[in-house]
Amino acid sequence: MNRRSAPNPAEFSDAVDASMPIAERLFSELEEKTADGVGVTRGSYGEGEQIAHDLLEEAATSLDLEIDKDPAGNLYMTLPGENREAPAWFVGSHLDSVYHGGNYDGAAGVIAGVTAQAALQRLGVTPQRDITVMGIRAEECSTWFVGHHGGHLGSRAVLGLLWPGEMESAIHVHTGRTLAQCMDEAGFDSSYFRESSRPYLGPDNVKGYFELHIEQGPVLHCKGFPVGIVTGIRGCLRARSARTTGFYTHSGAVPQEMRQDAVLGTAELVLDLERQCDSARANGRDMVFTAGKFFTDSDHHSIVKVPGSVDFAFDIRSQDRAVLEEMQDYVTRRAAEIGERRGIEIGLNEMSLVTPAVMDEGFCAHMRQGAELLDISYMDIPSGAGHDAADFHDVGIPAAMIFIRNDHGSHNPDEAMELEDFALGTRLLAWTLVMLDE
Amino acid sequence: MNRRSAPNPAEFSDAVDASMPIAERLFSELEEKTADGVGVTRGSYGEGEQIAHDLLEEAATSLDLEIDKDPAGNLYMTLPGENREAPAWFVGSHLDSVYHGGNYDGAAGVIAGVTAQAALQRLGVTPQRDITVMGIRAEECSTWFVGHHGGHLGSRAVLGLLWPGEMESAIHVHTGRTLAQCMDEAGFDSSYFRESSRPYLGPDNVKGYFELHIEQGPVLHCKGFPVGIVTGIRGCLRARSARTTGFYTHSGAVPQEMRQDAVLGTAELVLDLERQCDSARANGRDMVFTAGKFFTDSDHHSIVKVPGSVDFAFDIRSQDRAVLEEMQDYVTRRAAEIGERRGIEIGLNEMSLVTPAVMDEGFCAHMRQGAELLDISYMDIPSGAGHDAADFHDVGIPAAMIFIRNDHGSHNPDEAMELEDFALGTRLLAWTLVMLDE
Repeated sequence: MNRRSAPNPAEFSDAVDASMPIAERLFSELEEKTADGVGVTRGSYGEGEQIAHDLLEEAATSLDLEIDKDPAGNLYMTLPGENREAPAWFVGSHLDSVYHGGNYDGAAGVIAGVTAQAALQRLGVTPQRDITVMGIRAEECSTWFVGHHGGHLGSRAVLGLLWPGEMESAIHVHTGRTLAQCMDEAGFDSSYFRESSRPYLGPDNVKGYFELHIEQGPVLHCKGFPVGIVTGIRGCLRARSARTTGFYTHSGAVPQEMRQDAVLGTAELVLDLERQCDSARANGRDMVFTAGKFFTDSDHHSIVKVPGSVDFAFDIRSQDRAVLEEMQDYVTRRAAEIGERRGIEIGLNEMSLVTPAVMDEGFCAHMRQGAELLDISYMDIPSGAGHDAADFHDVGIPAAMIFIRNDHGSHNPDEAMELEDFALGTRLLAWTLVMLDE
Repeated sequence: MNRRSAPNPAEFSDAVDASMPIAERLFSELEEKTADGVGVTRGSYGEGEQIAHDLLEEAATSLDLEIDKDPAGNLYMTLPGENREAPAWFVGSHLDSVYHGGNYDGAAGVIAGVTAQAALQRLGVTPQRDITVMGIRAEECSTWFVGHHGGHLGSRAVLGLLWPGEMESAIHVHTGRTLAQCMDEAGFDSSYFRESSRPYLGPDNVKGYFELHIEQGPVLHCKGFPVGIVTGIRGCLRARSARTTGFYTHSGAVPQEMRQDAVLGTAELVLDLERQCDSARANGRDMVFTAGKFFTDSDHHSIVKVPGSVDFAFDIRSQDRAVLEEMQDYVTRRAAEIGERRGIEIGLNEMSLVTPAVMDEGFCAHMRQGAELLDISYMDIPSGAGHDAADFHDVGIPAAMIFIRNDHGSHNPDEAMELEDFALGTRLLAWTLVMLDE
């Protein structure tokens, strides 16, 4: 640090507050330029995501941060530290969104990072090591890519976590192009991830990963805390492209017992999974279950036909990997049983299992101390949603997250983060990044 | 009759067989001209239906039959009888189809009528009264029109059975146009049905209605009979445009008990109705239940969102009106209960109830006698599907139906009617039309 002594907590707070116009302008421009008439749309490797990357790069350039990009198109904005060779502190989140999503999910974390960097510049701080803010691609790829993939494609690519063939088996929902094609068509280089055995990022160049994110549930709002310190991230078991195949026939003329009804069979399966979830929770285990897609074929369905086909997708989450593994067996068995009894085929196709991630306890303790010094009211909270932080954790990089209170959920246009709460989280982030090395 | 005596059974059979090339050519041209790459498509008041009407009109003209049309666009092809003032025998069926439907559902009845007329001409028969073959519009309108309507729009319009406002509340699924607009844009005159208090058809001009149709279930095929004599037609209770409204939120971050999940609520309702159906059948009552449409909103759904909306449709059929009335109360009550418990709104919107129809016993007895004389193997069979015949019955016109064996159901491209079976049914039809007045 090129100051004689570390700033005191009040100085951190004042510097963040003085840098808030940067955040306000970025949120406002982002919303305006990626609005879709309902909310915002920033598709993974799509136009809206690129707009967000361009805006952040422009802001970082005007702050004289160092700019870099990787072959997957992730954006790096670095405030140089004293020791340029030391592994850096990373602050990241994603710049894509779901279709008709909200302005804060993902973007808040990147903007918080840049705002914190600006505050450190304002304080005259040169950190011990580089502080790199990472604008990550394709975290919301489950909205944009079907087929067989493990989600979080931008971070997993550079962390060396892609499965063999995943670049080809993730298929864009609208264009039918593979992930590799989408990446290349957006101007990046998918071949890097097929050819290189050395991950782009790892513990040798990233000392720790921090992510600020809106809470995507109602807990902080209901309990009255502006900020949450995340203890862990739920893993998930997902079937993205499940399909039940029955037989189309006449809705009046075929006896009930001779039918192969795809809707009733799929309904039976999802209700069975809901009951399984209720029973797990009643036994004190962590689990939520969602069948977010369930649709008959609009080219063939009719009120006067027994439905012959249903496409569906489900997402089971838990902080306990054993729950996810048990459910993988359970749903496979039940799909087969229901299918056989009803004369239909319930094809789950490939399921993906993402392991839960525990946040770094040292980082969490440090942040709790910071929150107290900075007079920020906080609570410990688990994350129900998945985040890129889990992928950093998975390769041995210690990770931590800050949640910001948000009234209206996420993945919809009504996210309701207050900038005051965001400023509190950003103060904590700035303090944490500097003081961990003091 | 301008012959000295009625033809004998063998003469009827020979004349129908000799007229079969007309039927074969019509089936083949119809299929070719309305093929859609999968099956055939002849939308109600759409292009394919019009092609079918044009083909039939052309065939009737070349047989010197009298041609007429009504303000709803139904086609009448008349073999004049001796007494032109007497109410006529009608032979009808529909010329539209479901989307990606089969070639025989509907068209077989109209083609059988024209083939029978040609056979009577060949026999030199002038019937006692006019024999009119009616090509009916919009029997498959449940595929093509949503909103509030009672189905069978072509026949119900001319029989004076439309509800007040039905012309405006039936909405085309693709164009969003009302039935009145579709009818007028196809060149017909919807205003007739708003302004005229006198139905176009009724007992004063139709003495009896006959309809030949493929069986839409597997019963004749399984039992080995080429022909069925229909005893009655199931009625139905339908919700065409039901919608469950919940709340979109994050699939991982929101506790299960705080969700308003539209898929799980709708799944619970349809499974409940299936159980109710099983229980009715176990008690010896007639009922089938189908939820032919069940779809989340492709603009909003995602594997990572709790689903906030489901559109669905169901069709409950029974030969017992009491069952349909009880189910109307039951589903209304259950939708409210499930909705309240789950914090969602299950909107059934307007349901329509069509009363079951009993076929004319005198006609049925006459046809049984004919089948024996003509050496046609037949069985009595109820109709699970609805037909225009039920609407004629509803205004006091005695009605009867002949089913033709069909292996692969209907409302799909795989209908498998054999022309040999069709010829047997057409022999019975020709014999019946003449011999009822002998």
